[in-house]
Amino acid sequence: MIYEPLFKLERTGVQIHYYTNIRKYNPVHWHSAVELIYILNGNAKISIEGKDYPVVAGEFVVIDSNLLHEFCCRGESMMVVIHFSRSSMKNFIPNLDEYHFQCARAELQKENLGAYLEICELLKGLPPLYVMHPTGYKLKSQAIAMEIFFELVNQFAEAGEWVQKPEKRENLERLEEIIEYIELHHKEQISLESIAAHFYLSREYFSRFFRKNMGVTFTRYVNQVRLMHIYQEICNTEFGIMELAEKHGFTNYKLFNKMFHEVYGCTPREIRMSRKRS
Amino acid sequence: MIYEPLFKLERTGVQIHYYTNIRKYNPVHWHSAVELIYILNGNAKISIEGKDYPVVAGEFVVIDSNLLHEFCCRGESMMVVIHFSRSSMKNFIPNLDEYHFQCARAELQKENLGAYLEICELLKGLPPLYVMHPTGYKLKSQAIAMEIFFELVNQFAEAGEWVQKPEKRENLERLEEIIEYIELHHKEQISLESIAAHFYLSREYFSRFFRKNMGVTFTRYVNQVRLMHIYQEICNTEFGIMELAEKHGFTNYKLFNKMFHEVYGCTPREIRMSRKRS
Repeated sequence: MIYEPLFKLERTGVQIHYYTNIRKYNPVHWHSAVELIYILNGNAKISIEGKDYPVVAGEFVVIDSNLLHEFCCRGESMMVVIHFSRSSMKNFIPNLDEYHFQCARAELQKENLGAYLEICELLKGLPPLYVMHPTGYKLKSQAIAMEIFFELVNQFAEAGEWVQKPEKRENLERLEEIIEYIELHHKEQISLESIAAHFYLSREYFSRFFRKNMGVTFTRYVNQVRLMHIYQEICNTEFGIMELAEKHGFTNYKLFNKMFHEVYGCTPREIRMSRKRS
Repeated sequence: MIYEPLFKLERTGVQIHYYTNIRKYNPVHWHSAVELIYILNGNAKISIEGKDYPVVAGEFVVIDSNLLHEFCCRGESMMVVIHFSRSSMKNFIPNLDEYHFQCARAELQKENLGAYLEICELLKGLPPLYVMHPTGYKLKSQAIAMEIFFELVNQFAEAGEWVQKPEKRENLERLEEIIEYIELHHKEQISLESIAAHFYLSREYFSRFFRKNMGVTFTRYVNQVRLMHIYQEICNTEFGIMELAEKHGFTNYKLFNKMFHEVYGCTPREIRMSRKRS
């Protein structure tokens, strides 16, 4: 699933995930939960609404609700991802919608560095709980995450209605349907004409709408979705690479190789080889 | 309400209360939540299953689920009381029923002093949040309470089924009905005969059952309940003291004065006077 409309969040409204990846790529997506990505090891590039934020080990980035974001990491990495449900957090902070979040190392003001490092300190408490599993580690993890959210609200939330303009909300609803359609049909040849017609839009309007809201052209996005699926199958199956590319809708093999290298920083064959060796 | 079968606990299963009292007396009661009492100011006497635990400022006591306890504080005091719902905590700690809690300063082993002081340190973080009300103070308070429970489970929980023997559980169910009956009828003259008959028990059996399970005789308990109500009205109404004693079922005025002094450490008239002065 690329589009994540609903997380199965814990009853406290906080969900914590730990990831260990060799290469990871998530095309543009969004969700209603506020997301915090903390890099434990390696580095990654996160794009938020079209702007790139490189992050290295020990740093974190916060992505506010419903912001379009893309995740790319070419080497080995370990990370903690926390999702905070806005509606659950509103049980504790009734006026939460008056705030929006922005926090990345690169854009930090000098006077906020202390607060940023304090959150890093709290984040450092999570991996040992995950590794050692002491009795009640889930309770303590939740407590740490809740403290982090408290610090975020007090140090990195900016005043100003978070509630989105109706126009943006409507756009997201329409995009949601489009993304779902692409996910379902990415193995087929989806032309700009056919998808525009499916949504009762002109070719030109659809093209502009998609590019403007997703920050990427329709054709490129469909290929990104295909690449993600192909990468999964290269890692987990024995199917030939050309076969996989075709299966997931790539007809232009040269373009496939070029895009693959762009995103994952190596050739499909290199991934297959390294998997076989390990 | 003396008997508190159900707390309106927060969705996290943690409820935090702050009390400022001049004298406070709660006759024997119990509830399914685990309770932590932290004295900020003054001192108090807490009896758990008939055993006295004096507590002074800076100390805390933990009372496990369904243990009978009594609270008495004669002077000015400030305290934090936290209730942890066992069933909610089981969402985080599935095997919680394998533990029971015991933690009081007086019974502390030398090797546990560090852990005890660590919890004190966490508790100290609560009053400033309550006084200053920063944005999201409820979230942070909950987080602190959850960390405290994590520490309690790891440092002050003893292995051994918490799940009560059927006999004890049945006794509590019967006591619950008796306590409710007393609360409802304390203004009347409830004789040992009449209440025993109401529950289809012999006078002798009822008397023994009550004394054994509540740690206090039936007659004394009824008078404790009356005292608690009278104290409230002395503080909050203008009714004459004799009138109040009679209204709440005291017929022996001498006994009333004696018990009142025992529990609150002063005469009813002194309380009236000090209220009038302030």
